[in-house]
Amino acid sequence: MRSSTLFLRTLRDDPADAEVDSHKLLVRAGYIRRAAPGIYTWLPLGLRVLGNVERIVREEMAAAGAQEIHFPALLPREPYEATNRWTEYGPNLFRLKDRRENDYLLAPTHEEMFTLVVKDLYSSYKDLALTLYQIQTKYRDEARPRAGLLRGREFVMKDAYSFDVDAESHAASYAAQRDAYERIFDRLGLPYVIVAATSGAMGGSRSEEFLVPSPVGEDTYVRSAGGYAANVEAVTTPVPDARAYDDLPAAHVEDTPDSTTIATLVDAANALHPRADRPWTAADTLKNVVVAVAHPDGEREVVVIGVPGDREVDPKRLEAAFAPAEVEQAGDADFAAHPELVKGYIGPAVLGPNAGGEREVDDDAHAGADGAARGRVRSGAVRYLLDPRVVAGTRWVTGANEEGRHVFDLVAGRDFTADGTIEAAEVRAGDPAPDGSGALELARGIEMGHVFDLGTKYSEALGLTVLDQNGKSRVVHMGSYGIGVSRAVAAIAEAYHDDKGLAWPVAVAPAQVHIVATGRDEEVFAAADALAVALDAAGLDVLYDDRRKVSPGVKFADAELIGLPVTVVVGRGLAEGTVEVRRRASGVTEQVPVADAADVVVETVASLR
Amino acid sequence: MRSSTLFLRTLRDDPADAEVDSHKLLVRAGYIRRAAPGIYTWLPLGLRVLGNVERIVREEMAAAGAQEIHFPALLPREPYEATNRWTEYGPNLFRLKDRRENDYLLAPTHEEMFTLVVKDLYSSYKDLALTLYQIQTKYRDEARPRAGLLRGREFVMKDAYSFDVDAESHAASYAAQRDAYERIFDRLGLPYVIVAATSGAMGGSRSEEFLVPSPVGEDTYVRSAGGYAANVEAVTTPVPDARAYDDLPAAHVEDTPDSTTIATLVDAANALHPRADRPWTAADTLKNVVVAVAHPDGEREVVVIGVPGDREVDPKRLEAAFAPAEVEQAGDADFAAHPELVKGYIGPAVLGPNAGGEREVDDDAHAGADGAARGRVRSGAVRYLLDPRVVAGTRWVTGANEEGRHVFDLVAGRDFTADGTIEAAEVRAGDPAPDGSGALELARGIEMGHVFDLGTKYSEALGLTVLDQNGKSRVVHMGSYGIGVSRAVAAIAEAYHDDKGLAWPVAVAPAQVHIVATGRDEEVFAAADALAVALDAAGLDVLYDDRRKVSPGVKFADAELIGLPVTVVVGRGLAEGTVEVRRRASGVTEQVPVADAADVVVETVASLR
Repeated sequence: MRSSTLFLRTLRDDPADAEVDSHKLLVRAGYIRRAAPGIYTWLPLGLRVLGNVERIVREEMAAAGAQEIHFPALLPREPYEATNRWTEYGPNLFRLKDRRENDYLLAPTHEEMFTLVVKDLYSSYKDLALTLYQIQTKYRDEARPRAGLLRGREFVMKDAYSFDVDAESHAASYAAQRDAYERIFDRLGLPYVIVAATSGAMGGSRSEEFLVPSPVGEDTYVRSAGGYAANVEAVTTPVPDARAYDDLPAAHVEDTPDSTTIATLVDAANALHPRADRPWTAADTLKNVVVAVAHPDGEREVVVIGVPGDREVDPKRLEAAFAPAEVEQAGDADFAAHPELVKGYIGPAVLGPNAGGEREVDDDAHAGADGAARGRVRSGAVRYLLDPRVVAGTRWVTGANEEGRHVFDLVAGRDFTADGTIEAAEVRAGDPAPDGSGALELARGIEMGHVFDLGTKYSEALGLTVLDQNGKSRVVHMGSYGIGVSRAVAAIAEAYHDDKGLAWPVAVAPAQVHIVATGRDEEVFAAADALAVALDAAGLDVLYDDRRKVSPGVKFADAELIGLPVTVVVGRGLAEGTVEVRRRASGVTEQVPVADAADVVVETVASLR
Repeated sequence: MRSSTLFLRTLRDDPADAEVDSHKLLVRAGYIRRAAPGIYTWLPLGLRVLGNVERIVREEMAAAGAQEIHFPALLPREPYEATNRWTEYGPNLFRLKDRRENDYLLAPTHEEMFTLVVKDLYSSYKDLALTLYQIQTKYRDEARPRAGLLRGREFVMKDAYSFDVDAESHAASYAAQRDAYERIFDRLGLPYVIVAATSGAMGGSRSEEFLVPSPVGEDTYVRSAGGYAANVEAVTTPVPDARAYDDLPAAHVEDTPDSTTIATLVDAANALHPRADRPWTAADTLKNVVVAVAHPDGEREVVVIGVPGDREVDPKRLEAAFAPAEVEQAGDADFAAHPELVKGYIGPAVLGPNAGGEREVDDDAHAGADGAARGRVRSGAVRYLLDPRVVAGTRWVTGANEEGRHVFDLVAGRDFTADGTIEAAEVRAGDPAPDGSGALELARGIEMGHVFDLGTKYSEALGLTVLDQNGKSRVVHMGSYGIGVSRAVAAIAEAYHDDKGLAWPVAVAPAQVHIVATGRDEEVFAAADALAVALDAAGLDVLYDDRRKVSPGVKFADAELIGLPVTVVVGRGLAEGTVEVRRRASGVTEQVPVADAADVVVETVASLR
């Protein structure tokens, strides 16, 4: 590649819509351009990085025994209807009609299609185990596409699917993909942590995420010194033992005027009803948060979540608990439909299974991902779900369901119960790990990969069975394994850059060497030409800045912005017979005799692999 | 690849929806599967062929100096609105809305996006010439998807675009792509003819198609012995000289009852009004065909086409003449709106510029592709367009605009004129080539490539200009160059198969060698294993049929169906120390000592390249 002809223009200024460094730098250095919100065009350098990521993924998939196929992006509604995902995906799904008014979608993921193609071709346990994959363009109509390639609406994914006759065989297929992921992220130069995860709209049971630690990541995860690691959405709360409450005083309702927040309630309690041993704190209060749950079938349910007053409800944990339903803020209409909910003074007396009113609980529909939110009241009564810490015997200050009044010494198990528990309260640094392995630390990460045990959700819905050794029909056990391929380009850029630009690892760099010829001396360009030829012959990819009327300063700045691993400056030093070899990441520079330049560059690139 | 694990099942029977051999065989041999009408899934062998085609295209694009980039498939409406193609594409365009109700499309082609990205990055004549390309998934909502990959609704194309400061420079860019196309089709093993073409909805002027001769092709083309070649849509009719008509008799209206077709008219004329010198023939009559033209803006126009009665109107030529408008059959409502059109007896007296009635002609809108159909009557009057053979002085029997009556000796130029000419009459074998190079032959072909001189249509619409040497703004001259990449897979299959299956050329075959081990003798499988290892080490791709419980007959049939260039049978001959090497295309078979097998196979594959 020569700069004089390469389709590339670097930009001095950050694009207006870019928030994170990788997005800013990939646009400024001429790797990508925005075509629409969350939809990007790949320019020559960007396409090369993407191709390098794809190649590494393909090599490791092949090494893991996975076979590549390729599905369409435009798919008919029917298979997604069979698994209910046509509905469950809600507004995240791009839907369209063809000229005959048939429903189509732009696939966000391909579980259904892989299941059906295996059903089409295979019928015996002898055909399994099988793992198929594709590298393919996917679509999700994100509400807030952000951060460039990190969360797009059109993006490239590797999705693999395993098919096994039983859970034991599945475990081996799952392990093979998980191992391949470790090798892939190692080769891409991406640091990662593997965390327990929820499975969201995918269904299934066990799942783990590969997160790249990064402050711009959208995921929060926890780790303990003892080795526990989980996405914050998947963290379970250690349940304290129930306590005896025989000696506890009876509940009593007190005036607490103007106390619609936890802070004002604590102040009012301390002022009007002081506690003998210590002041009241937020942790003594039980906060009841009203949310509206939009179920995929269109039904809207009002749910109250009870959490200790010193913790917020974490919207992502709340969403995960109710997935695939979506959680929205409760609005005026919701409160109007439930006059028993007195804003700011809501308490258990009008909530939960003891609150009276006939209820019909549907145990199958809308089961929450973690099982906690299972069962749903269809009668219009309000379901009450409690944080797991609110065990029997804990005592609380909470709403009395009357304007300006709260109830004190309300004891769980004695004075109220709930419809179930829910993991919705925020996780905090210092919280205990659920497995007893120590206190949790919190960090942010970019989700780069996700491996799922799908169980038989899709094979059952779509009728994928095989005959086993005894001629008996067996529902196939599936797994699903995704990598964000285009997202990886951004994640690598996020991990490898400084204030001057990108600094690609050799394995994914669009070229390994940037030759910068400076000045106007024809001997300089002749030497640079010769070096480009020699490096090309040595099998290296070279970007050669052969522009004649561009200043050295601009060329150096471009080289640092573009971020190839090694830069060779051919310029004034040539008079003394030397060129300069710079390593982009470390900044290490050496003067090298021009005769040795090609060898030194080859060795330097090799040393950086 | 080993048959025991490869994701492949061959089928005994042709798929019910398949009409052409390539479609039948690609499905039966396990290369593709249908996901929806005109939408296909690539199975492992098919994806390998597609990858080989893509690789050859990429190599030749690079050799021609084109740079690869990659655009999204999902694009916003605005750029396509600016060029009017959002409307012009009509029902062929997949349109959809995102969650914010913004309009999007699935791009059928990317002229707009390429134009805009060059406008975004470049501004000087020094940046040009530039040729960019992508290999990308495209979408067209075809009314009749057919023939498998030959006409799909989701398909892979290579589309390249050239950008030049002037027409002279453009000619060089055009030639470079055209030359690359010749090399590409040569390497793919596709025989082709280059024919003059119309540019359809693309706009622009000069265009040529690369057609692969095939009876299943959708395109008809003509060739003369003297070297003229054109798509039938682009053939122009040599215009005869006008003739003197001073001596011709006056027109006279005669009774011709029950003569609403050319055949019945000729019979009636010969029976009731016989001609002295010879009988009347269809060639003496002027047939007036009523069509309805659906313009992209939604307006519907009734047009009458006059052609010699011995020729049909060719629907494809008619469509090409009116593109981007669509042509439909005139219906009852059209006739009701024009009571002057007496079905079966329509004649020039109520048509054309002399037919009376006020007209407002809009010369810019809806210009036909060949210029013939330019100008459109907006007043509701019927436009009359004549075949170019109907020159002044020709005399005709044609409708008298009264039930049961025709007019005789109606002379063009003397008794009637029209609003223009149109190339809509069928082209026949034996017709003269427009350049005088002899009589035309007709044949059918598959359109594999299309090269266009776009002129400044897109650069003007989207404001792509550069400053020239003198600092003057110049509108960039563009070219567009497409290859149907997924279609090429089918076209190659169409060109290389027999009644037993596919017979791939080495350059695109999913593997070069098929090792078939027969019987149950472990020594046979050991020898086959060793041969597979040796061929792999020699850099060949091998499919090794290592299935233990499958009969030799089934294995041989599979090998012929799958169609790899060379098959090696390791079986009974092994007792005598030989294996059999078969060439799929020629059927030539030789017995080879097992020790020489790898060398012979390597040489055989090399000889087939």
